[in-house]
Amino acid sequence: MKAKTTVVFMTFEVIVIMLMGLFVDFEATDEDPTGVIHNFFKRNDYATLQSRIMGAELQCRTALFFILCEIVFIVLFAVYVENPRFADEEADHTAGEDPSHAQPTLPPKRDLYAMFQDTHVMIFVGFGFLMTFLRHYGYSAVGINFLLGAFFVQWAILCQGGFHSYFMGHPSIHMTLNTILNADIAVASVLISFGALLGRTTPMQLFFMGLVEIVLFSINEFVVYNVLKAFDAGGSIVVHTFGALFGMFCSLAMINRKASKEEDAHMNRTSNYFSNLFSMIGTIFLWVFWPSFNAALTEEEDQVTAVTNTYLSLAASVVATFAISYFVVHGGKIEMEHVQNATLAGGVAIGAVCDKIEHPFGALIIGFLAGTISTLGYRFLTPLLEKKLQMYDTCGVNNLHGMPGIFSGIASCFILMAEFHNSELDSEELSFHYHANGTQLLHKKSELHVDAWEEVSRTNRDQALAQFEALAMTIGIAIVGGLITGFILRLTFFGQVHKSHWYEDHHNFELPDLDEDGIRRHGSNLGAGAVDRIFKIKETQKQTAKELHDALEKGL
Amino acid sequence: MKAKTTVVFMTFEVIVIMLMGLFVDFEATDEDPTGVIHNFFKRNDYATLQSRIMGAELQCRTALFFILCEIVFIVLFAVYVENPRFADEEADHTAGEDPSHAQPTLPPKRDLYAMFQDTHVMIFVGFGFLMTFLRHYGYSAVGINFLLGAFFVQWAILCQGGFHSYFMGHPSIHMTLNTILNADIAVASVLISFGALLGRTTPMQLFFMGLVEIVLFSINEFVVYNVLKAFDAGGSIVVHTFGALFGMFCSLAMINRKASKEEDAHMNRTSNYFSNLFSMIGTIFLWVFWPSFNAALTEEEDQVTAVTNTYLSLAASVVATFAISYFVVHGGKIEMEHVQNATLAGGVAIGAVCDKIEHPFGALIIGFLAGTISTLGYRFLTPLLEKKLQMYDTCGVNNLHGMPGIFSGIASCFILMAEFHNSELDSEELSFHYHANGTQLLHKKSELHVDAWEEVSRTNRDQALAQFEALAMTIGIAIVGGLITGFILRLTFFGQVHKSHWYEDHHNFELPDLDEDGIRRHGSNLGAGAVDRIFKIKETQKQTAKELHDALEKGL
Amino acid sequence: MKAKTTVVFMTFEVIVIMLMGLFVDFEATDEDPTGVIHNFFKRNDYATLQSRIMGAELQCRTALFFILCEIVFIVLFAVYVENPRFADEEADHTAGEDPSHAQPTLPPKRDLYAMFQDTHVMIFVGFGFLMTFLRHYGYSAVGINFLLGAFFVQWAILCQGGFHSYFMGHPSIHMTLNTILNADIAVASVLISFGALLGRTTPMQLFFMGLVEIVLFSINEFVVYNVLKAFDAGGSIVVHTFGALFGMFCSLAMINRKASKEEDAHMNRTSNYFSNLFSMIGTIFLWVFWPSFNAALTEEEDQVTAVTNTYLSLAASVVATFAISYFVVHGGKIEMEHVQNATLAGGVAIGAVCDKIEHPFGALIIGFLAGTISTLGYRFLTPLLEKKLQMYDTCGVNNLHGMPGIFSGIASCFILMAEFHNSELDSEELSFHYHANGTQLLHKKSELHVDAWEEVSRTNRDQALAQFEALAMTIGIAIVGGLITGFILRLTFFGQVHKSHWYEDHHNFELPDLDEDGIRRHGSNLGAGAVDRIFKIKETQKQTAKELHDALEKGL
Repeated sequence: MKAKTTVVFMTFEVIVIMLMGLFVDFEATDEDPTGVIHNFFKRNDYATLQSRIMGAELQCRTALFFILCEIVFIVLFAVYVENPRFADEEADHTAGEDPSHAQPTLPPKRDLYAMFQDTHVMIFVGFGFLMTFLRHYGYSAVGINFLLGAFFVQWAILCQGGFHSYFMGHPSIHMTLNTILNADIAVASVLISFGALLGRTTPMQLFFMGLVEIVLFSINEFVVYNVLKAFDAGGSIVVHTFGALFGMFCSLAMINRKASKEEDAHMNRTSNYFSNLFSMIGTIFLWVFWPSFNAALTEEEDQVTAVTNTYLSLAASVVATFAISYFVVHGGKIEMEHVQNATLAGGVAIGAVCDKIEHPFGALIIGFLAGTISTLGYRFLTPLLEKKLQMYDTCGVNNLHGMPGIFSGIASCFILMAEFHNSELDSEELSFHYHANGTQLLHKKSELHVDAWEEVSRTNRDQALAQFEALAMTIGIAIVGGLITGFILRLTFFGQVHKSHWYEDHHNFELPDLDEDGIRRHGSNLGAGAVDRIFKIKETQKQTAKELHDALEKGL
Repeated sequence: MKAKTTVVFMTFEVIVIMLMGLFVDFEATDEDPTGVIHNFFKRNDYATLQSRIMGAELQCRTALFFILCEIVFIVLFAVYVENPRFADEEADHTAGEDPSHAQPTLPPKRDLYAMFQDTHVMIFVGFGFLMTFLRHYGYSAVGINFLLGAFFVQWAILCQGGFHSYFMGHPSIHMTLNTILNADIAVASVLISFGALLGRTTPMQLFFMGLVEIVLFSINEFVVYNVLKAFDAGGSIVVHTFGALFGMFCSLAMINRKASKEEDAHMNRTSNYFSNLFSMIGTIFLWVFWPSFNAALTEEEDQVTAVTNTYLSLAASVVATFAISYFVVHGGKIEMEHVQNATLAGGVAIGAVCDKIEHPFGALIIGFLAGTISTLGYRFLTPLLEKKLQMYDTCGVNNLHGMPGIFSGIASCFILMAEFHNSELDSEELSFHYHANGTQLLHKKSELHVDAWEEVSRTNRDQALAQFEALAMTIGIAIVGGLITGFILRLTFFGQVHKSHWYEDHHNFELPDLDEDGIRRHGSNLGAGAVDRIFKIKETQKQTAKELHDALEKGL
Repeated sequence: MKAKTTVVFMTFEVIVIMLMGLFVDFEATDEDPTGVIHNFFKRNDYATLQSRIMGAELQCRTALFFILCEIVFIVLFAVYVENPRFADEEADHTAGEDPSHAQPTLPPKRDLYAMFQDTHVMIFVGFGFLMTFLRHYGYSAVGINFLLGAFFVQWAILCQGGFHSYFMGHPSIHMTLNTILNADIAVASVLISFGALLGRTTPMQLFFMGLVEIVLFSINEFVVYNVLKAFDAGGSIVVHTFGALFGMFCSLAMINRKASKEEDAHMNRTSNYFSNLFSMIGTIFLWVFWPSFNAALTEEEDQVTAVTNTYLSLAASVVATFAISYFVVHGGKIEMEHVQNATLAGGVAIGAVCDKIEHPFGALIIGFLAGTISTLGYRFLTPLLEKKLQMYDTCGVNNLHGMPGIFSGIASCFILMAEFHNSELDSEELSFHYHANGTQLLHKKSELHVDAWEEVSRTNRDQALAQFEALAMTIGIAIVGGLITGFILRLTFFGQVHKSHWYEDHHNFELPDLDEDGIRRHGSNLGAGAVDRIFKIKETQKQTAKELHDALEKGL
């Protein structure tokens, strides 16, 4: 128990340091010898308040916060997280623990490592490149996705393990393959919210948003799986619906409605030929590895079912996306935005039921409907929300994760509620084996330790109610949490990206001196390159004309 | 049996709807309230017949066909496809089935899931990006590859399972990891054919081609593995040779020789710096995961042999490709086209014998020869075929899949036929263990159910004959099938891409408004961007000069 | 034994042929009928010696060397390498071998195949694309990486197996999953050295460098693992430190100091917007799969520990990289070079101890420090080394592999040496389980056969000494080997890249006729495209002005 006390003091101390970092005003000292600190504290060339907030001071604060938080994480890991392989030895020294800790450290489930790696690719390659479709925001998309992912997996391990420890009475968090897989999945919700806000936030805002979101996510996940005992193998409810709604309502609350009314069409929010191709890298890796994402945490005997159902659902949603895109895009062409996103809706929509659907054709129907809903959402709903509510959603996460996730949750209720009679096999049982192994799933999923399993018997109606409660609670927490977080993000402390700088890399990343054509850029804005060039040409023309004119006048 | 009757009626009904979709003329009604249907049916701005065929009517028809076909698939899945995990329960209600259905749903083979995922990456990332080398056809390469892949895996599950059911007397198709792995492999043949036709077809033509090709592929595969009992672990004969020849002869028959004689060099059929790099993403993922492709369906005890032989063969073909490219390219440089494609020839060429070659150096020799053949093919054969026969082959699939595939088939015969004496070990047995486990392989490969295995004893000569017959039959079916399909694709019903629009995305995909430089494009042709710009500059110059002239005249 | 004699003769013969290829002067004969040989031998348009060395003669020589070497490899494989699955049969014919050869051919370790494939992706996708950050050297980065990787895995199998055979008395090299995994890892050291030299060498120089480096690598690896019995699961000492120092000192010795003093800032050594994004593909795949790289060769019961520690270390190094980059980059922005490289330092730094660290927070600390060291290295050390010593290091491998590798080696000593007392558990044992399973690891890692394991008991101090000796020896061999190799590479025989052509693809690869804008390039230099264009515009302006002038004069 000494350790626990220590950690409280240490964490407290660190928070004090953080607060100091916050409020202490850094004085620019010219006699700074190293040149480094000097270099970034002295920024007298920033004149306006806007530039001060956007400029180096914010960057320093951001960096300090990440470093301090990393230190806090290290302290918390030191106290709470342990490797189960070495836990036994220590157990002799501490209190007597239950012998289930002498578990085999290798996961008992086949292919778990391969599925973890597939999921890992999805989180960092998939989400990262999916968001590179903006022509001037590629570095931020892939880079900040990388930073947020790597940072918040640590926080997710602490939060997910923490809630489990608190409510289940485990003294520590164990590092296993399940732990890091669960952390990756938790981070997916932050990255989905990042997709909604893409291009309109500072890293500091995202840092704060993620801290809050992971906490709420962990609470919600714990209640859904361990209290309500709802099933949601692919995380359609707890990850996709939660992340999408949180991000969207955060986006809604963040916008200063008066300031932003001025200009509505934003020139940078466009793609170019190559940025769309980079985005396809993300899309296809997500699509290919989605069966692993959905199947990774199912029961061993359900894994193949989860894989094949997800495979079929994804295949059907690709067909739906292309077909519907042909219909709704002006000129009968296909929109790359639809191909990049709506093709994945089948993976989201099958998530909650991927291991429960008995008949493969059910997966095809769900995938086809999800692809249709998602494509229509991109075409009609997103522009509408932007126009009417100023609810910006850069990547359209509502269409890819939000609506298909809710659809998946409703589908899981609906199929349980309806006592439908199979035309072939009259008076057949329900199509879902939710009972017994359904609840085992729930336990295993939230398991950071290997416990004895609890058997839960419920009627269909009760389980359907649990599914509905899980969905409703998730939506509620996401909306309220998102709105509150969004309002907090309006504080100038977190910095703000002015609307004229939305969707631009240059305030986060050092851009190459030379643009694609090898012509030296002058402005910090990449887009300005081309304009500069034309301007330069015009200037040369004027000069040529002027010289000629002078020459003529002289000659005359 | 009620179900079987139902499906016949339902499928019939759907075909009627499809025919209606075909022949009923959609009237443009101005009072359409939704705006959507109105939007795409009223296309009076298309004046010429050419634009009508190329325009929205074709796109609508394509979309309708995909949707209707998807509905047919769903119906067929509902009737014929079942999840073996839940099959037992239903078995009580239907006829008494053999108890082997009570199989474990998890695959008994190690690493099968990892190998499936590797293959999945090859099909969607590998093939998709490999074809992005054309500078104006990247979206179509990766997008249509995606659509075709996702659409035809469903059709392949039905066809492969269907033939098996029909000839083997199984009442239904089971969804297992083997099923979806086999479907992925079947789709590879369609995507290889797509490579031959890349840039010269409408999606509607590819839709029809794929429907036919998968049926022929399934028949041929069934005969090769189950009737002839030939061995071909990596599918060099049944997938690569078949797909390449089908595509090439389809391409040959499709071309309207009179119309296309006019212009031979096509300006769009070029790469730019980045499109070649995107293509390398595809190449390297294909190269890296090829051992999984070849080993996935081998016997468990042959898997490591298949992996190491494929690894060595691929390594040797990379060396051969670079070395030969140095020799044959003007100026002693390396051609990226060779690096992108011929490096993979080793994987194709080892396919039929990857689990049979005892001595690792044999794999190196096969890989080296395959790389050499393929590179020489790209340099000399493809231009020749185009010039003499107008047999276009955009990706050079003949060099990557065709010739190495045939080489692999011949190698499998040759090694069996020749009673060669090993210099070290005189009067040694043949290097191939084709017998007994060779035939087990065949069964397992085509297995959608787990059956009792049949032992087949054959002499070397008989097996060599079987290999030869398999190769000859595959070539025959591919050529005849390809030619007939190609002729059918000339029908205006499927739409045609006029030669001046070959290798251009813009009739399939909505292109970004801004090109790479952030300059607004005016034409629909991306390539026109740069031309426009130069033109604009010239115009400005003229104007400047004119203004100056006017000013001077006034001044004077 | 007949075989061994045969191979000596054959290899001798091949070496004679190689020497002939070297010194025989190829005469250009005009009456060469094939046109091919004619085509590349007749290069009378190359006037100067420089162009002769740089031109086709060198390319031919390079191609010949690769082909001849491949033939030598095939011969050596034929004699020395065998497939263990078929080895038993031959054993009856040859001498009586120990029965341990009747091993199961499938690897006994879970997930080994998945981990091999992940590593394979890292070598070819990861390293290849990581180096595409130079805007005019993308083809060479990914292409030559591909060639070197595929070529040297074969050489590595021979060298690693050869040393094992020689010292351990095994008659042959067995092809197993471990063999190809070890070969991939060995090749990583060559590719790291390639990173240091990137853009300044001919393929012929890299060919020679790799041949030498793999030999030295194999000797060093053998001594470290089998003689010193040091532990280094992730190869931080034997792969990363070795490869980085070898490459850097090779670079140092290669530079002709007099000639290169002239111009210091090299214009081509820059990125553009898309080349940096391509590089991120490599970064993220390396980052995602690094846990597999470190865990692949650990003991089965240590695998999860290795995976989770690497995962945490990598996560912490990402946070450190971004935070430090904010501080040290002018303007408070993030440098993409740091994100591309320093984020991976955590994987290198945890390598030697990934399976030994008991407490997860230790991994976080190591990762955080490594990211910090690496980022500071990129910012301050690399420019310093270039300026003061002309020690060029294109990819900064010293910062990514060198310093974090040495840090990892020192960490492994330090933790063993210090008898630190855990604050919670006083008088606890050391945190490392190096003993017994530590040595089993060593054996297994270097194992190409499955042997009986040897138990080694050592005190902490002895093992720490062994770790230190391993590190010191590796550094020594790498520096001396690198320097000597670098001096040899100055021979004109290997060709030289003149400083004005550094970091340019065009002397290795045929570049597309059209650049990104679809404008026909005239020079062979891509960068010249833009300059040409501007020049062209100016010319047109002059002409317009001149025409106007003429018109005015006439008119007047």
